[in-house]
Amino acid sequence: MAVEAPTYLGALQAFTPYEPEYVRMDTDDDGLIPESLERVLTAGNIKFIYLVPTFQNPTGRTIPLERRREIADIIKKYNALLVEDDPYGELRYRGRDIPPIKALAPDNVVYISTLSKVFAPGLRIGFCHAPDQISKWLVIVKQGTDLHTSTFNQALAAEYIAGGFLERHLPKIIDLYSPKQDAMLSALDTYFPKDFNWSRPEGGMFLWVEGPEGFDMEELYWQAVKRNVAFVPGRYFFSSRQEGIETMRLNYTMADEQTIDNSIKVLSEVIKTG
Amino acid sequence: MAVEAPTYLGALQAFTPYEPEYVRMDTDDDGLIPESLERVLTAGNIKFIYLVPTFQNPTGRTIPLERRREIADIIKKYNALLVEDDPYGELRYRGRDIPPIKALAPDNVVYISTLSKVFAPGLRIGFCHAPDQISKWLVIVKQGTDLHTSTFNQALAAEYIAGGFLERHLPKIIDLYSPKQDAMLSALDTYFPKDFNWSRPEGGMFLWVEGPEGFDMEELYWQAVKRNVAFVPGRYFFSSRQEGIETMRLNYTMADEQTIDNSIKVLSEVIKTG
Repeated sequence: MAVEAPTYLGALQAFTPYEPEYVRMDTDDDGLIPESLERVLTAGNIKFIYLVPTFQNPTGRTIPLERRREIADIIKKYNALLVEDDPYGELRYRGRDIPPIKALAPDNVVYISTLSKVFAPGLRIGFCHAPDQISKWLVIVKQGTDLHTSTFNQALAAEYIAGGFLERHLPKIIDLYSPKQDAMLSALDTYFPKDFNWSRPEGGMFLWVEGPEGFDMEELYWQAVKRNVAFVPGRYFFSSRQEGIETMRLNYTMADEQTIDNSIKVLSEVIKTG
Repeated sequence: MAVEAPTYLGALQAFTPYEPEYVRMDTDDDGLIPESLERVLTAGNIKFIYLVPTFQNPTGRTIPLERRREIADIIKKYNALLVEDDPYGELRYRGRDIPPIKALAPDNVVYISTLSKVFAPGLRIGFCHAPDQISKWLVIVKQGTDLHTSTFNQALAAEYIAGGFLERHLPKIIDLYSPKQDAMLSALDTYFPKDFNWSRPEGGMFLWVEGPEGFDMEELYWQAVKRNVAFVPGRYFFSSRQEGIETMRLNYTMADEQTIDNSIKVLSEVIKTG
């Protein structure tokens, strides 16, 4: 199977027990590079491609519409299957919505999403829109895995959505998260060394920071934790674990703005003093 | 891995994606035959044994205490790992409780159970008691599989149990199911041909019926469904699917007693007329 480098850690953890051979695709600030996808599909036997195209975990990056069209054309040309994971698409703070790749290549995409980031993670309610034949297989797989998702929670979620509560709740989450993202970006601008770079996503929950070549972000992690600041070292989001040594993922959704500012300041001090 | 023949269909469906080699163990009316277990453990590399020792699905059979002691001694002797699946143990209508194998060989058994048969299947709440090291692995596996079970449902179940509601609810289920089992056993005695045999379990949800050698229970299924009576042909509970052609599983928990009597009568008519 083909994955972005970096990609969502939890997806790697879910796939790995089935012992797939991960084929890595290149990314830049606009996410997956279409030429890299085409190269991978030409070279080998790819069962499916896994992508988080919008406000990606861990980078926060979003694939622009023009590139989505190229990706859709490529998967149609090679009759490839794409799993489009979209947990964060509704958490947009700026800019305009971009259609999912599913809308551009419906027969080649299994679109998956969740209520975890917009309603309640504790309900464990996700959903998917797959081509007909794959939907039938997924029902069988779901039965073999856990028989079914809690009917109680499914009914609760259905009432929540049908009653218009999700629509009314979304603006509240966006009003909550957006200033936190601003606070973190502004603190990074203020405190972080000039040879560090980071993403400026228009939504989602994460920022991706790249230090200078050779910088060991995991070493920084152990120093920062002593001062009660934690983040996820970036290399865990690479299928090889050999890449991304100089990267980190920051999450701005849990702390208040003052704590975010203080924490980025502490991180910058730890970077400077080693 | 080693499984009883027959064993729980849903377990086979859960294990099969990992492509295990199933090693089949012999059973009789008292469940797993300990000599068969020892033979299997001597012969090969068994990662774990899967058993439903109490009111087994599909046969309803329960392994007696003396045999449980033998099984416990064997798994200790070979330092083998047993997964003891016990969803039905609380549904006892007659006779005395028998301790789980977990109690006889605690370091060699992962005991698993569920609230699905005694509280509500729609909550999807199960639980397990495993040796320490395996518990740590299970936490990691659980995170990789689905991160966690719904916190909302876990809290709901905890309140239900702590409040004593489960204890008060159990007698009601037993009073509901026990006469249904009586009705089905009595209907089988009345209507079924003399060359058919069936189990008479002291609890649980299932009866296991064996027809004469060569009798095709799947053919009977298709005839019976035309008259609105369904059951599960027994061969689906064998890892090989080559065995159990002449067997069937009956479930008496869903229908009322009159319907049970009528349905067994219809089945017997279909058996007699072909």
